[in-house]
Amino acid sequence: MASIQTVKGFRDFFPEECALRNYIFDTWRAVARRYGFVEYEGPVLESTDLFRKKSGDEITSQLFCFTTKGEDDVSLRPEVTPSLARMATARQRDFKKPMKWFQIGSCFRYEAPQEGRTREFVQFNADILGDASPATDAELIALAIDTVREFGVSTEDFAIRLSNREIWNTYLSEKNIPAEHTSTFLQIIDKIERAKPEDTENKLAAIGLSLTDVRAFMASADENHPAFAALRENLTARGLWQQVRIDATIVRGLAYYTGTVFEVFDLKHGLRAVAGGGRYDKLCSLMSDGKVDMPAAGFAMGDVVLGILLKKTPGAQMKLTSALLASSSIDAYVVVADEAQRGNALAAVQTLRAAGVRVDYSFGAQKVGKQFQAAEDRKARFAITFGTEYPEVVIKNLLARSQSTVPVDGLVAEVQRLLAEPALGPLIA
Amino acid sequence: MASIQTVKGFRDFFPEECALRNYIFDTWRAVARRYGFVEYEGPVLESTDLFRKKSGDEITSQLFCFTTKGEDDVSLRPEVTPSLARMATARQRDFKKPMKWFQIGSCFRYEAPQEGRTREFVQFNADILGDASPATDAELIALAIDTVREFGVSTEDFAIRLSNREIWNTYLSEKNIPAEHTSTFLQIIDKIERAKPEDTENKLAAIGLSLTDVRAFMASADENHPAFAALRENLTARGLWQQVRIDATIVRGLAYYTGTVFEVFDLKHGLRAVAGGGRYDKLCSLMSDGKVDMPAAGFAMGDVVLGILLKKTPGAQMKLTSALLASSSIDAYVVVADEAQRGNALAAVQTLRAAGVRVDYSFGAQKVGKQFQAAEDRKARFAITFGTEYPEVVIKNLLARSQSTVPVDGLVAEVQRLLAEPALGPLIA
Repeated sequence: MASIQTVKGFRDFFPEECALRNYIFDTWRAVARRYGFVEYEGPVLESTDLFRKKSGDEITSQLFCFTTKGEDDVSLRPEVTPSLARMATARQRDFKKPMKWFQIGSCFRYEAPQEGRTREFVQFNADILGDASPATDAELIALAIDTVREFGVSTEDFAIRLSNREIWNTYLSEKNIPAEHTSTFLQIIDKIERAKPEDTENKLAAIGLSLTDVRAFMASADENHPAFAALRENLTARGLWQQVRIDATIVRGLAYYTGTVFEVFDLKHGLRAVAGGGRYDKLCSLMSDGKVDMPAAGFAMGDVVLGILLKKTPGAQMKLTSALLASSSIDAYVVVADEAQRGNALAAVQTLRAAGVRVDYSFGAQKVGKQFQAAEDRKARFAITFGTEYPEVVIKNLLARSQSTVPVDGLVAEVQRLLAEPALGPLIA
Repeated sequence: MASIQTVKGFRDFFPEECALRNYIFDTWRAVARRYGFVEYEGPVLESTDLFRKKSGDEITSQLFCFTTKGEDDVSLRPEVTPSLARMATARQRDFKKPMKWFQIGSCFRYEAPQEGRTREFVQFNADILGDASPATDAELIALAIDTVREFGVSTEDFAIRLSNREIWNTYLSEKNIPAEHTSTFLQIIDKIERAKPEDTENKLAAIGLSLTDVRAFMASADENHPAFAALRENLTARGLWQQVRIDATIVRGLAYYTGTVFEVFDLKHGLRAVAGGGRYDKLCSLMSDGKVDMPAAGFAMGDVVLGILLKKTPGAQMKLTSALLASSSIDAYVVVADEAQRGNALAAVQTLRAAGVRVDYSFGAQKVGKQFQAAEDRKARFAITFGTEYPEVVIKNLLARSQSTVPVDGLVAEVQRLLAEPALGPLIA
C-alpha cells in the first residue's frame, strides 16, 4: 500500500504549527472574555437540512455532506451561525439578553484550495443576540479591532470596511426597483470592484439602473450618512472610529444580512478579508420557524488569512515568536550525572512537576555533556544536576550561566524563587 | 420544515458545558507541558485507508466514512494514533528522540450512544516515540496519574490497572500454543471478567487451554513478575507505585499493543475506563511500510467518562466549580447612571479592556438598579458608576460591599490594584 497522504485541503499541525494555532486561539479567547463574551461550541457535524434551511439547496455543492449508516443526511459544518441559531432559539429563555457568545472551532468547505483558503479552517465567531441597537454593532466592531490589535497588528496595518444594507434598500426604493431584484442587485455590487465595467453596466441596465448613477450614490455614502450616525458616535467615544472606512461595495456574500455589514482587511498585502460580519435580524426567526424572533449580529474571523497576516507583519511577528518560544520551552532539565542518583532524581522530577514546574530529563544513562545539550535543545532555563554531591544538587542558569548549590530538600523552593526572577537572572551573576 | 435537532450522539456545548470542556482541556494541557510534552494536532478527516491500514477492514463498520465529491474515501477519525504515526514517520528526522507529543481533539465513532459513550468525544493523547525503555512506560503512567490527580480526584478514587502482553506471550509459548491463536486468546482474556465461565472454558479448550490453568497463572502474575521490575522501581522512586494494580486481564482491545498495557479506572462508581494505553513498537513500521521502525508508547483519555467522574467526586467538584465560576465571571460592570456620561463610560470601558480587565455594561439606557442587577448576574467583582459626579467615578466592590470614589484618570490603576487583592477585599471593609 502506498504511503497515505493528508486529505487535500486539510492540515497537519506539527508542534510549531500547533503552537501558532494555540497562540491564535488563546488570543481570541482572551480578548472575547475581556469584552464579556462567554464561550459555546456546537457539533462539527450537523443535519444537512440545517444548512439548507439557512442558505438554500445550492449550499450543498460546497458541503462535505454524506449519509450515515443510520440514513441521516449530515454535513461537516461550513460555518457556525446555523448551529448558533439552532442552539440559541432552542434555549433562549434560559439566558439573559443580550447574549454575548463566542466560539472557536473547525469549519469545512469543499472549495478549491489556494493561498488563504483551505478546506478545513478554524473560525472565531462572536455574536450578540437579543439586542437590535447600533450599540451592539459597535461592540462587535470594537471587538474585531481589538482582537486584531492584540496580535500586534498596528492600526496602520488594517482597517474596517463598513456599510449598511439599508443604504441600498433605500436607494432601490427611491428608484422604484421591485424587491425581487434586490438580491441580484446586491450580487452586482458585491462584484463591482472585480467585474468588467461594461458587464456591470449591462447587468444593472437589466434591472433598470445605470452604473454612473450607482457610482455617484456610492461616492455620496460617506461617514455622514445617517445610517452610520449612532455607530460613529459610539466608536468615536472609544477612539476607534479612525479605523473605519465607509465602503458601500461591502454587502457580504451571504444573503441573510439585514443592516450593518463590515469586513476587517489588511492594508499592506492585499490578502482576503481577515474577518467579516454584520446584522442578521431575521435568521433566528427563519431557523426556528417563526417561534423565536430575536435580533442578532456577529462576525467570524478565520485562522488562515490571519496566520498569513501575522507572519507578514513585523509587530505581530515579535509577539508570535515570543509566544512560540514560551510554549515550546521548559523550566528545568534534570541531569543525572551519577546513575546511582536516578531514583532521587526521579523523586525530584515528581516534586518539581507537582509544584507546577515544567521539567524534562533523560530516560536512560547518558554522558553529562549530552544531557546538557538536551537541556539547551529543550530551551530549559535551568539544569539541575544530581551527582556525587547528593543530597546537594547544582542548579545552573543556562541563560545567565550562573550556578548555585542547594540541598535537595530546598530544591523546589529555590527553583520557584529563581523562576519568579526575570529570565536573564540578576544583572551581576 | 420541522425543527432541526442535534445529530444523534453529538453534543451542543452551551456556555456551562463549554466551560467544563475548556477546564478539562486546560488541565490536560497544563500537566502535559509540565511533563515536557509538546502539542500537535492532526486533521479530523483522514483517508479511510489510514484506518484500514492500522486496524483492518472491519474498522469501517465503526467509522463515519464517506466518499467526497472528488471521489476520495475519507473518514472522521475514530482515534488519533494512526494520524500520529503518519505524521511522525513522515518527518521523524526533524525531531530529537524521544519525541514526547500530546494532542487534544475530537474523535468520532459510529457506535450506539449510552452512558459514558457518545459518537463524538474528545481525546487527550500522550505518546512517546523513539524510546523502547520501561522508563518511557513509567513516564506515561506517571503522567496519567498526575493528570487525574490534577482534577482533584484523590488517590483513593482511582487506580492504574497494569499488565504486559509479554506475560501472555511467554505463557502461550510455554504451553506450546501456536502463534496464530494469540489474538483469539487475548480476546478471551479481554472478556474473561464479563463472559460466562463455561463459555470461556469452551473457548480456551478449543485452542488447547484450561480455565483453571489460566486463572492460576493470572493469580501468579503479581507485582514481583520480572516484566514489571523496571517499571516498579521507577514509579516507586516517584512515589506512584501504590496507585498501580497488576491485572493480567488487561490486554486492551486494540490488536497492536506489544508490551506494557494499562488502564486508568475509578474505584467508586464502576465507570468505563477513564484512560487506556500501552506500548506499540510495531505500528510506525506498519504505517510507513517498513520505512521507519520506531518504538512507541502512549495513552488516550476521553472527556466523557472523565467528565462524569469529576461530577461524582467531591474533591473534583470543588475545583470544577471554582474553574467554572472563574470562566463565566467578569471583573467589572460599568454602570451608566447619567446618559450624558455614556461617551465617557465607553471610553473607560475601552481603556479598562485594553489593560486586560474583563468589562461589560448595558448597551442602552437602563435604570441604575437594573444595571446593578446585571452586574450581579454577570458575577462582576466591581461596579463602576458614571454619573453626575463625573469626572469622579464610584467603584463598588460587589462582594465586600465597600466602595470608593476615584477621578476617572486614575480608574485603570485603581481597578488593577483592587483586582490584585484577594476576591473578598480587606477583612474590614
